[in-house]
Amino acid sequence: MNAALEKPRKVYVTRTVEFNAAHRLYNPEFSDEKNLKTYGKCSNPHGHGHNYELEITVSGIVDPETGFLLDMKELKKIIEREIMERFDHRHLNFEVEELKDAVPSTELLAVVIWDILAPTLQNHTNQELTLHEVKIHETRKNSVRYLGE
Amino acid sequence: MNAALEKPRKVYVTRTVEFNAAHRLYNPEFSDEKNLKTYGKCSNPHGHGHNYELEITVSGIVDPETGFLLDMKELKKIIEREIMERFDHRHLNFEVEELKDAVPSTELLAVVIWDILAPTLQNHTNQELTLHEVKIHETRKNSVRYLGE
Amino acid sequence: MNAALEKPRKVYVTRTVEFNAAHRLYNPEFSDEKNLKTYGKCSNPHGHGHNYELEITVSGIVDPETGFLLDMKELKKIIEREIMERFDHRHLNFEVEELKDAVPSTELLAVVIWDILAPTLQNHTNQELTLHEVKIHETRKNSVRYLGE
Amino acid sequence: MNAALEKPRKVYVTRTVEFNAAHRLYNPEFSDEKNLKTYGKCSNPHGHGHNYELEITVSGIVDPETGFLLDMKELKKIIEREIMERFDHRHLNFEVEELKDAVPSTELLAVVIWDILAPTLQNHTNQELTLHEVKIHETRKNSVRYLGE
Amino acid sequence: MNAALEKPRKVYVTRTVEFNAAHRLYNPEFSDEKNLKTYGKCSNPHGHGHNYELEITVSGIVDPETGFLLDMKELKKIIEREIMERFDHRHLNFEVEELKDAVPSTELLAVVIWDILAPTLQNHTNQELTLHEVKIHETRKNSVRYLGE
Amino acid sequence: MNAALEKPRKVYVTRTVEFNAAHRLYNPEFSDEKNLKTYGKCSNPHGHGHNYELEITVSGIVDPETGFLLDMKELKKIIEREIMERFDHRHLNFEVEELKDAVPSTELLAVVIWDILAPTLQNHTNQELTLHEVKIHETRKNSVRYLGE
Repeated sequence: MNAALEKPRKVYVTRTVEFNAAHRLYNPEFSDEKNLKTYGKCSNPHGHGHNYELEITVSGIVDPETGFLLDMKELKKIIEREIMERFDHRHLNFEVEELKDAVPSTELLAVVIWDILAPTLQNHTNQELTLHEVKIHETRKNSVRYLGE
Repeated sequence: MNAALEKPRKVYVTRTVEFNAAHRLYNPEFSDEKNLKTYGKCSNPHGHGHNYELEITVSGIVDPETGFLLDMKELKKIIEREIMERFDHRHLNFEVEELKDAVPSTELLAVVIWDILAPTLQNHTNQELTLHEVKIHETRKNSVRYLGE
Repeated sequence: MNAALEKPRKVYVTRTVEFNAAHRLYNPEFSDEKNLKTYGKCSNPHGHGHNYELEITVSGIVDPETGFLLDMKELKKIIEREIMERFDHRHLNFEVEELKDAVPSTELLAVVIWDILAPTLQNHTNQELTLHEVKIHETRKNSVRYLGE
Repeated sequence: MNAALEKPRKVYVTRTVEFNAAHRLYNPEFSDEKNLKTYGKCSNPHGHGHNYELEITVSGIVDPETGFLLDMKELKKIIEREIMERFDHRHLNFEVEELKDAVPSTELLAVVIWDILAPTLQNHTNQELTLHEVKIHETRKNSVRYLGE
Repeated sequence: MNAALEKPRKVYVTRTVEFNAAHRLYNPEFSDEKNLKTYGKCSNPHGHGHNYELEITVSGIVDPETGFLLDMKELKKIIEREIMERFDHRHLNFEVEELKDAVPSTELLAVVIWDILAPTLQNHTNQELTLHEVKIHETRKNSVRYLGE
Repeated sequence: MNAALEKPRKVYVTRTVEFNAAHRLYNPEFSDEKNLKTYGKCSNPHGHGHNYELEITVSGIVDPETGFLLDMKELKKIIEREIMERFDHRHLNFEVEELKDAVPSTELLAVVIWDILAPTLQNHTNQELTLHEVKIHETRKNSVRYLGE
């Protein structure tokens, strides 16, 4: 065992993936005027789309035997199954159960992805491991973080 | 006048913009099976989307008086009016006249943007100026260039 | 309303802008020798410049009706009026009231931008909203964050 | 002195460097089968390599005289001497004393770099200054942060 | 068929991948002194490593039926089989047949990758398709292009 | 010697550096009105600045003995001496001999850097080597290339 890992060390490991999706920002409970005022060209009827860059950060104590916080192959599988399958190459308004009847803003996306991943990570990995942060870049200029607060 | 510009100097000036659009790769003349084989998950019915990064390159002789190839404010206006108005926050299959009945691949996008900009640039600026290249990054991993060949 | 937003969710939204400015690191109260020792080539008399990349992060509870933390169009206007008008295409030593008689280091810039934006954000938006962080990249290698501490 | 620095302001300054190193993920206490299961192709006998991007963040109160948190030239020297000399253009399994008999994971690297820099920064600079975070990007998709917890 | 593709259009399509490898720059025919003079710290005995970013560009006429230059899924398979299998997570001096007894410089890598891909692309795809360029970024600061000249 | 280098191979090697400079776009032969119309806020009296990213590309035949196009350490020295010394941390309107009485546009910068480097590279390296391209990114959105035409 490495001397540096003899005492517990808490690290934050981030995995970045990209998914490509369409969305339309539109609230059916709003008037057309309020939709336009609130969402501007993001409320165009047919929707538009983004390359969403998603950063998943998990935290916990480094395993002194493997030198890893977690088995990255396992994390990749979870992200593939829970996130990419749900969101990649989808229209967020029509094809994602968790976003039904919702305005698929980046804020909501971050919250929903947290709600999906937090229990999944707890079931599939060691007890110490916790989801720390979900960050989404909608464009190079706009991003949202959610930390479970 | 600067000594370095006493002889003609040909430069290439590139302006980069980003537009966000939805698209679906689907050819109505193909069977569903052939569509799936050709376009995979890009043929999902509701479409998906991208942050398209577009690089417009023009070439010509530097004006020895201004030190510029062209008035960048003029180029910005042309790109805003001809490209952003047409493509930004649109669904490429339904809202762009030039892509009607077409499969909106990145290859076709590059060609269509060339066809729109090439004559516009010739009308609005000095005689020497030529559109040199249209480059589109669909994702960080895939890009297409068209040079009018 | 979306089920996920039935309980309060605190998110952090970041908007990134770039401004181009000149500056000179020079303290008139120092001797020339101390200026050179402290600031090196950054104290060259005519100044030099940077593409400053500025990341403004605000935090608060997502509005369950709009799905937004805040109206991004409003935030863009504030950043345009308060930051871009003041700093973009300026010489920071001569043209910015808040930096008069100051050494325009990136540290000071971050603090001054915080001091400008914090009260403005409180006046113009909902009560929950708070400025969380001001981050400035001076170059790809150097950046500074200020969180109001 | 600048008015904005009359009260103490705590900032976080980040310096980014890149080092190029080879490593092999392999634990001699594991069976070959367990090594393969744990580390996959990262356990290939001859090792592979990365451009490690390292972000060192220090925090403290801005010096109202210089406008700096710290003398960046001094920080550069420390990073050059303590980090680049040790890790750049090295094979991490064979040439770094602190990684002897260890599995040179990115998690361990972050911890070891913290352990090297934390006391060095305390010796060489003002009392207020503290190492805040060590972040390493192993690839564009994977990164690890350690904050001394 | 789309009107824009009624005449032949030549496009350049680029696919970007990353592989992580170790190498040592050392020519056994040189004296130790000449090796050190030529390759500097790149000749360190155990080798070091990089995240090589590889851009493969193919050119040809857009297929008016599919809107594609080529089936990207096919290109991905070729790159996976011919390039990633050979180079990813390898030590270039010991594990790559094509680099045996060679100094694995980035220049040579570009040439060797061209020599592997050029005939493969001709066999597996339509007649018009040609490999246009192999570009490798060794670091953010250094890159090499080879165009078959 | 490596088999792949038995026949001559022409490669393009690019080295990227960054320099930080101030400039003002202003032509003393123009009226104030024409300066404002031509250069907009870029003509602000005190100037502004940029992180200029400069890509120098040289081309030639790979040396079959070293595997290199050229000794990169030599190229670094030339760029340091000829470019960084002249332009880094300077005000381009006042401190660069080659830009005296000129409007320091990015177009002119590219041409002037070509004129400086082209003969220098011919003197200092092997006969085959040629400067191929000078590319400057003024911002993330604007860049200029000059190829000696």
